[in-house]
Amino acid sequence: MSESTPKFEGWMGLDRESARGQMRPTPYPCCVGHEIVGIVVRVGTQVKGLEIGDRVGVGPQSDSCRGRVDGHCVQCSTGNEKYCTKLWTGTYAGRYLDGSMSYGGYALHNRVPSHFAVKIPEALSSAAAAPMLCAGATVYAPLKQYGCGPGKKIGIIGVGGLGHFGILFAKALGADWVSAFSRKAAKRDDALKLGADTYVATSEDKDWAIQHAGSLDIIVSTISTVSSNTLPITDYLKLLKPYGAFIQVGNPEDGPFTFPAGALIGSGLKFCGSKIGNPGEILRPMKEANQAILDMDQGKSRYRYVLMD
Amino acid sequence: MSESTPKFEGWMGLDRESARGQMRPTPYPCCVGHEIVGIVVRVGTQVKGLEIGDRVGVGPQSDSCRGRVDGHCVQCSTGNEKYCTKLWTGTYAGRYLDGSMSYGGYALHNRVPSHFAVKIPEALSSAAAAPMLCAGATVYAPLKQYGCGPGKKIGIIGVGGLGHFGILFAKALGADWVSAFSRKAAKRDDALKLGADTYVATSEDKDWAIQHAGSLDIIVSTISTVSSNTLPITDYLKLLKPYGAFIQVGNPEDGPFTFPAGALIGSGLKFCGSKIGNPGEILRPMKEANQAILDMDQGKSRYRYVLMD
Repeated sequence: MSESTPKFEGWMGLDRESARGQMRPTPYPCCVGHEIVGIVVRVGTQVKGLEIGDRVGVGPQSDSCRGRVDGHCVQCSTGNEKYCTKLWTGTYAGRYLDGSMSYGGYALHNRVPSHFAVKIPEALSSAAAAPMLCAGATVYAPLKQYGCGPGKKIGIIGVGGLGHFGILFAKALGADWVSAFSRKAAKRDDALKLGADTYVATSEDKDWAIQHAGSLDIIVSTISTVSSNTLPITDYLKLLKPYGAFIQVGNPEDGPFTFPAGALIGSGLKFCGSKIGNPGEILRPMKEANQAILDMDQGKSRYRYVLMD
Repeated sequence: MSESTPKFEGWMGLDRESARGQMRPTPYPCCVGHEIVGIVVRVGTQVKGLEIGDRVGVGPQSDSCRGRVDGHCVQCSTGNEKYCTKLWTGTYAGRYLDGSMSYGGYALHNRVPSHFAVKIPEALSSAAAAPMLCAGATVYAPLKQYGCGPGKKIGIIGVGGLGHFGILFAKALGADWVSAFSRKAAKRDDALKLGADTYVATSEDKDWAIQHAGSLDIIVSTISTVSSNTLPITDYLKLLKPYGAFIQVGNPEDGPFTFPAGALIGSGLKFCGSKIGNPGEILRPMKEANQAILDMDQGKSRYRYVLMD
């Protein structure tokens, strides 16, 4: 275990909904906050790699089985803790292996297993690091998993808390091209400033699905609604090249996805899901995508409120 | 071009529907047949690798652009002719680059570009080879693409014309485990004889989705209906391990797929489509999965009618 004094805290809709018990029944007392940055003030006797005074971050997951439930765990032993099926402790409103509750970052202190406390590189301000712990890692993980890099063309749907990281990371990972998609034209300038090569306003630009057909290798959708007006899924699938991947990271609550199998079969496409980031997937973009984040860090973020102290 | 005298011919529902114009308007005159085995009787002057007397097979695709339409083609130049977006000539009722029609295998002779005529290994009988040209290649391609092999556990949905190849190929590729799924128990013995390690009758076995939850790396669905009774998709997705892939190869006509994004996000799953096989994907299983096919070849196939001469 390591204990830190949270100083910086990302704030997402998830926190608001959980605090109100809107996602699922919330086990009160509940202390929300799942993008925590703080300074280590205590460490357990078995903690390795962290010392008092270190600056660390904690994302939305604060524990997994790590081989302590029914022996070896394929996921935990390969750095895929987020998909551990034996124990999954959310940073708040969750339960640890000993049955104790987890409490989030809106507190004077926060105590988590040190495995899930990621040391933040010096170059990165706490304000920039906080939203990378959930929002950033959630889009970085599928970009990396599905091969974003030189030679690839990427689409990012939604230019908000998650989507703006998508544009930044795709460019930082060396993608040849990034197309940003949003319903209205309002975010065009911001998306281009973030590094997008083109911007499509799907409810305003005519024939966008035809004009951009077959142009992208990977699309990451950060939209959390599936209404055809907001996320015209069959149109988006047409934008992919053969063998392309559409990855949904937002979990829509307004209904299921509906599309004909033929929309995938014709070009051998993948429709994928991905959730948050493993500890390794939180740490890597802080190092690899450093410059893009530092650049953003110097500007004033429009897409993420970061609460200070 | 090469010309062959078809002697063996697979027969699929697709042929029947196309002959009747049920799939889409059929451009008559139409000669169906898209699993053609024959002996080469003529070769064009530019044909390489085929000679008169060779035994060849032709699957459902008989041409693609091969760099002849708007220059370089990524798909054709990398052995992915089936996903060529510039020219796609079906073996019948299609059009070649020069505008001429394509005619299938129910004829005295069949003429196709030699690139799409695959030389059949000697050890394989024509009767065994014919159904591998479409049905076999269609399940082999995704098994290979998604990493079927030692260490992997595979599910095959449907034990029919495509599914029985799925079981054979998965075992031949070295999978640790193959689970076969069908609605009723009637095909249990056949599936086990084909090499399945277990068989699940989804409309008869109780709690199968719970019992087999998280057990499979790859599922190939050969079912061409999406009614929840026949293809309970959210139950099937529960069978996959984290990062697992569900690949649909049958193209259902009774409606779209419908499932919540959460069914994929929770375990980082992929819902994929795949169509037929490239020439290379037709040839490889004939070589690699040889013994399994030879074994089947010696028995009497229940799952595929092969018309002789």
